[in-house]
Amino acid sequence: MSAKNFRIIKSEIRVLGIDDGKFIPHTQGNVIVVGVVFRGGCWIDGVMHTRIAIDGLDATEKLASMINTSPHRRQLRLIMLNGVTFAGFNLVDIKALNSATGLPVIALTREKPDLEAIHQALQNLPDNEERWRIVLAAGEIHEITCRGSKLYMEMAGLSGADALKIIELTSTRSCFPEPLRVAHLIASGITP
Amino acid sequence: MSAKNFRIIKSEIRVLGIDDGKFIPHTQGNVIVVGVVFRGGCWIDGVMHTRIAIDGLDATEKLASMINTSPHRRQLRLIMLNGVTFAGFNLVDIKALNSATGLPVIALTREKPDLEAIHQALQNLPDNEERWRIVLAAGEIHEITCRGSKLYMEMAGLSGADALKIIELTSTRSCFPEPLRVAHLIASGITP
Repeated sequence: MSAKNFRIIKSEIRVLGIDDGKFIPHTQGNVIVVGVVFRGGCWIDGVMHTRIAIDGLDATEKLASMINTSPHRRQLRLIMLNGVTFAGFNLVDIKALNSATGLPVIALTREKPDLEAIHQALQNLPDNEERWRIVLAAGEIHEITCRGSKLYMEMAGLSGADALKIIELTSTRSCFPEPLRVAHLIASGITP
Repeated sequence: MSAKNFRIIKSEIRVLGIDDGKFIPHTQGNVIVVGVVFRGGCWIDGVMHTRIAIDGLDATEKLASMINTSPHRRQLRLIMLNGVTFAGFNLVDIKALNSATGLPVIALTREKPDLEAIHQALQNLPDNEERWRIVLAAGEIHEITCRGSKLYMEMAGLSGADALKIIELTSTRSCFPEPLRVAHLIASGITP
């Protein structure tokens, strides 16, 4: 899917922020993943959830299904992920998620992803070549500045300029977009 | 505990909004209850949770424990509940919650609580006299107006005038306080 150019970015653009709950690493089981629908950087319109396997390979498919079956789907204009690694090393293929949902995807982190360390850790998991392919499929890691702080961004289905505008627009409370800040608060606040 | 008089109500007063998740009525088991810490009617500072029994009698104790052990406890100034009935007929004793936490409590609903129907329904449950005592312990049901809409309020540990001010202050998005609107979106959005 080619990059979407936003004709206009509305101040109340509906953005879905996604993060995963807490879990004990290297165990078996599922983790809850929470999606929060924000209007711009201000109001919460809704919350959705799914469950993915710890160190599994179902994150992309489960997120796409959560989004496509949501009553909020038609209002959504963008997906924001707290990085591409969920539930340990259950990796989200942001290009595939973009294709499956028709929505642009931004994966954002405060720390620069350490590709060497990820590659190393993947050696201990099954399907490590497929996982590494997904990591690389996220494409270039862009260092950006938001309200004076450095952030690291990967993206699929939109231009870098539009991505930056939407990150700035939604970072109303801190130097991180509200949809992701709040998705993190919810996902970690509802898990033991 | 006597009614607290707020010397001043700050625009960013920390309010905890509480609501329960979805469940199948008349079944056995637990339901998640979510608490959302708001600064006034605008920003989310944190999320907490506990679990209570469907039609159980542990709501007051579990909420008090969730609040008193939270890292947000010292910032909190008020508790708002989406009514006093949680998880079916697991009733919150708002006076006891006020005493156990030292925080004023407002229970707010859009519909007027139908005491006759509640009394009737309680006949089918164990400990129905204790449950009815808790319903009555919430005291007078005040009909109030918030942004032109009627709401029904019970309260413990604060004056009616202060309760009204805080409800108005936090109802930034709709005719219902944000802490309760968002607690409902989260609790229902994370349950199947």
